[in-house]
Amino acid sequence: MDLDLFSDVGELTARLVDAESVSGNEGPLTDAIEAALGQLPHLKLHRDGNAIVARTELGRSQRVVLAGHVDTVPTAGNVPSSVRDGLLYGCGSTDMKSGVAVQLKLAALVTEPVVDISYVFYDCEEVESHRNGLLRLSRNSPDQLTGDFAILLEPTGGVVEGGCQGTLRAEISTKGERAHSARAWMGHNAIHDAGAVLDVLRGYEPRQPEVDGLVFHEGLNAVGISGGVAANVIPDRCVITVNYRFAPDRSADEASEYILDLFREWEVEVTDVAGGARPGLRHPAAQSFVAAVGGTPRAKLGWTDVARFDSLGIPAVNFGPGDPLLAHTKDEHASLSLIAECESKMLAWLR
Amino acid sequence: MDLDLFSDVGELTARLVDAESVSGNEGPLTDAIEAALGQLPHLKLHRDGNAIVARTELGRSQRVVLAGHVDTVPTAGNVPSSVRDGLLYGCGSTDMKSGVAVQLKLAALVTEPVVDISYVFYDCEEVESHRNGLLRLSRNSPDQLTGDFAILLEPTGGVVEGGCQGTLRAEISTKGERAHSARAWMGHNAIHDAGAVLDVLRGYEPRQPEVDGLVFHEGLNAVGISGGVAANVIPDRCVITVNYRFAPDRSADEASEYILDLFREWEVEVTDVAGGARPGLRHPAAQSFVAAVGGTPRAKLGWTDVARFDSLGIPAVNFGPGDPLLAHTKDEHASLSLIAECESKMLAWLR
Repeated sequence: MDLDLFSDVGELTARLVDAESVSGNEGPLTDAIEAALGQLPHLKLHRDGNAIVARTELGRSQRVVLAGHVDTVPTAGNVPSSVRDGLLYGCGSTDMKSGVAVQLKLAALVTEPVVDISYVFYDCEEVESHRNGLLRLSRNSPDQLTGDFAILLEPTGGVVEGGCQGTLRAEISTKGERAHSARAWMGHNAIHDAGAVLDVLRGYEPRQPEVDGLVFHEGLNAVGISGGVAANVIPDRCVITVNYRFAPDRSADEASEYILDLFREWEVEVTDVAGGARPGLRHPAAQSFVAAVGGTPRAKLGWTDVARFDSLGIPAVNFGPGDPLLAHTKDEHASLSLIAECESKMLAWLR
Repeated sequence: MDLDLFSDVGELTARLVDAESVSGNEGPLTDAIEAALGQLPHLKLHRDGNAIVARTELGRSQRVVLAGHVDTVPTAGNVPSSVRDGLLYGCGSTDMKSGVAVQLKLAALVTEPVVDISYVFYDCEEVESHRNGLLRLSRNSPDQLTGDFAILLEPTGGVVEGGCQGTLRAEISTKGERAHSARAWMGHNAIHDAGAVLDVLRGYEPRQPEVDGLVFHEGLNAVGISGGVAANVIPDRCVITVNYRFAPDRSADEASEYILDLFREWEVEVTDVAGGARPGLRHPAAQSFVAAVGGTPRAKLGWTDVARFDSLGIPAVNFGPGDPLLAHTKDEHASLSLIAECESKMLAWLR
């Protein structure tokens, strides 16, 4: 597979889509990216498994990280790509091979950027977080990820989305006492008690704090419930799984404390928590970026890898040409004009 | 296997327990019962699979049915039987081989009863109702089950328990709309909506109607709940399974209507309903029985096969020497003195 980094960015996106790279199978595409970047004398390459970092080393006063994952969710009969009415269809077209194509174009065209740039291409973003290539890079070679500001080219529809919210999962259990359902008063119904847990959820008022100038929107929801022993038995246990999405002015620990306190009447186990990321839009590099690409930045509500940059102390935003609502759909597609616009705005900023 | 119907009733119960007869495997025990009853010239036998009816035909003005199932739940290392401190231990000792032993003793000893008697021994009571031997008999040979009054020798601790409550199961579904849990307000949480269903259950006040002189006690409980799509998805469906135990002054249809109306805001499917049975204690044969065995009759709350007699138009009560709270336990046991007392009271009534 040969990638021509000097072809049109839409054409390059199509070639990337055609190179199927479902999580775990990024090898051939990564090899092709490495080979193409290896032709560019202004970049220094580092490879770690199926992740690549390509850096300029011009001694600029600031360094920007441009990152994107090369893997996709499983295909759904939507490879190879096709073009209709100015839209490029295919698995990964929006999430996020159009963003990766923009990264590759910038890497090829901007030989003398105003800031130093680290281009990061990584694997396994669409699967369990312990397999994430950016996490692996941050552990194996943290020096490859240093920078003053990071842009993740995840789909945002060409709007700057700052930071991201954290996410926490907890299991809340009610306890009862079994009895035959013909003599229910001999026991205690744990499913009925779950009603009081649902009362807390129904009465929840989401915080919508402003963080670094962007308004976030929290959420607290039951995403699962289960209880019951047998059709004639008063149940002695009911478990409600809740998902708390919290704004980045609250740490993972603070989010856990909040949930433990909110459900203090019951047994609560926090099973999973990942902190969010502050928008970082007050950083000079971020401000010049926002001024260059235009539009009004908004808060990113879903959790993304910007949180990993945040945990490395690097402010980060999401900005990419894909449409986030089309990610992971069979009908996934991206606007060729938006991809080109994204490329030209970033070119103008970096040159 | 030989059964000596002239041995002591406790001894006979022990032999019945030793003859393992888990539902579906009642053949050898039924053969032994048939052989033993076949020795009694005052009885006329009818066999249907592993069910036997043995009738006196003395032209009495009234006929009483004495019924019991010969099967047990699966054994739990509690066969053969053993005796300690006046208690007979073993699978089926309480539910209900002690009752069957009393039936067999009466069959052998009461050659000239004051009423005609139909002794019914049947299979598969402890499993799905469509396999029930009494149901099969009622369809194949309804003439074998005619009578003015029926006694089911199920465990009641030697107290007359009249009638039984009906039981209904229904699934109540709430509907929502899926969305990513990071943007919960784009969807609608069906699990949160289940809170209102649980509110109805938490606010439910059980009826305790008096029926034919006995006080029943209804119950309405969630026995199961399930909902949830994935840990990051707002769920679009939650299903609550409820079990309604209703007094016998309400028919199965009335019970269904009550539930459909109570949960009219939601989708409700009645998945299973079995009507109860009125106590029938106003019948002369029932009154003479109660006078003979003494004690204060109480309402039977769990569903039993008395409901099948009720549907055949025969008033029926439960009365047996076993302890209902020990039924289906590994530690199942029955009091030898209570078994003997039950036998002697019924002998006194029938002679």
